[in-house]
Amino acid sequence: MNDKKIRLTLCYDGREFHGWQVQKDLPTVQGELCSALEKLTGQKISVTGCSRTDAGVHALEYVCHTDFFPIPCENIPYALNSKLPSAITVREARIEDRDFHARYSCLGKEYVYKIYNDRFMDPFLVDRAMFYPGVIDTDALGFVGEEIVGTHDFSSFMAQGSPVESTIRTVKWCNISRDENLVTVKVAADGFLYNMVRIIVGTFITAGRDGMKRGEITEIINSCDRTRAGFTAPACGLYLNKVFY
Amino acid sequence: MNDKKIRLTLCYDGREFHGWQVQKDLPTVQGELCSALEKLTGQKISVTGCSRTDAGVHALEYVCHTDFFPIPCENIPYALNSKLPSAITVREARIEDRDFHARYSCLGKEYVYKIYNDRFMDPFLVDRAMFYPGVIDTDALGFVGEEIVGTHDFSSFMAQGSPVESTIRTVKWCNISRDENLVTVKVAADGFLYNMVRIIVGTFITAGRDGMKRGEITEIINSCDRTRAGFTAPACGLYLNKVFY
Repeated sequence: MNDKKIRLTLCYDGREFHGWQVQKDLPTVQGELCSALEKLTGQKISVTGCSRTDAGVHALEYVCHTDFFPIPCENIPYALNSKLPSAITVREARIEDRDFHARYSCLGKEYVYKIYNDRFMDPFLVDRAMFYPGVIDTDALGFVGEEIVGTHDFSSFMAQGSPVESTIRTVKWCNISRDENLVTVKVAADGFLYNMVRIIVGTFITAGRDGMKRGEITEIINSCDRTRAGFTAPACGLYLNKVFY
Repeated sequence: MNDKKIRLTLCYDGREFHGWQVQKDLPTVQGELCSALEKLTGQKISVTGCSRTDAGVHALEYVCHTDFFPIPCENIPYALNSKLPSAITVREARIEDRDFHARYSCLGKEYVYKIYNDRFMDPFLVDRAMFYPGVIDTDALGFVGEEIVGTHDFSSFMAQGSPVESTIRTVKWCNISRDENLVTVKVAADGFLYNMVRIIVGTFITAGRDGMKRGEITEIINSCDRTRAGFTAPACGLYLNKVFY
């Protein structure tokens, strides 16, 4: 099967991990996956992910690939799940052509960000949503998402000290909605700058708190000034939700 | 305020606790609550709960009372939550008449039991739902709940070695439903025998697996024989959902 690749689709609770990428002496998703692969096959098999995720960030859908796998594809999820910690589940394994690449073939991603908006935190959402007891009027904040959608230079929404070739990205959709006390921000783009979703979420909250008006988000974008956008919302509320190929 | 009682409504993630009732050297919900009360007031204040819950069982609504409280009622949730671990939240404090008693005034309770029914476990539901990969046809299992509803001797649905005055209880409703991969059993009764909900859930699963027919649950109830009912489903899927007064 060396002329093919294997695409793995995972989901994981990021609370226990220092992100995707392997780090010495720290638990990471990639590290756990490589360790499970080695236990299973006796071989060191490298795994390439669709993106890094930060410590504490979750994935409802995460895609990675391996160059080869010495067991039948349909058995891989069962076999790997038996060796993985319960915070990581392999949902699917699929054979791909040799030119498939988890990162470079990716056309875009969708993130969701969860905010628990009530007087007191829900104990079941600790480390799985941001707690925010202030007012969030999701109906009134629609303009924030509308102004973010489109092709823009998103420098204002990028963490400092993260050099990239271009800071231009195309946001396909960006909306905020409420289901009882749970507020969800959903953003899809062809790519994301470092901390971009978390700064967008902080900007939604700041816009509501400071009473921003239609047009102000466009001004923030055009300023290319990180200090004009909102705070960086905590990692625990962020979920990689879909990876598009 | 010594002529009144304070009713506290909590919710808690039971994963980290050895049940409600205080135990020496083990973390319990009652123990954490008493410790928070003492930190807050400098006094030892005893707390009476609506029921024991087993290790690992959760509560979306749990009610307890204290005989007195030296701070204004409306401040209690904020004050207590600042001293409690994040797995416990006090949602409400309310003044009650002296004759209110969390346990003896209780008219009934509703439990929900969550089963994650898919090929692989959802990492976000570990310790918060039972994992069951077999078939559960919730439409076909309606008869199980229908036969359980009513006033019966529920000896067949009680864990051995739990002496009680009477094994007769009245189940008000008992139904099974599905929302995608999450199967929920909801049971309300005027009272519950030890492990009764967990055995009812095990019986739903056993009935589906063994192809039980209408009438068989009534036979199991009438047999007053614990070995005729299903297995005891694990604690992690059980949530105290409502307490009726």
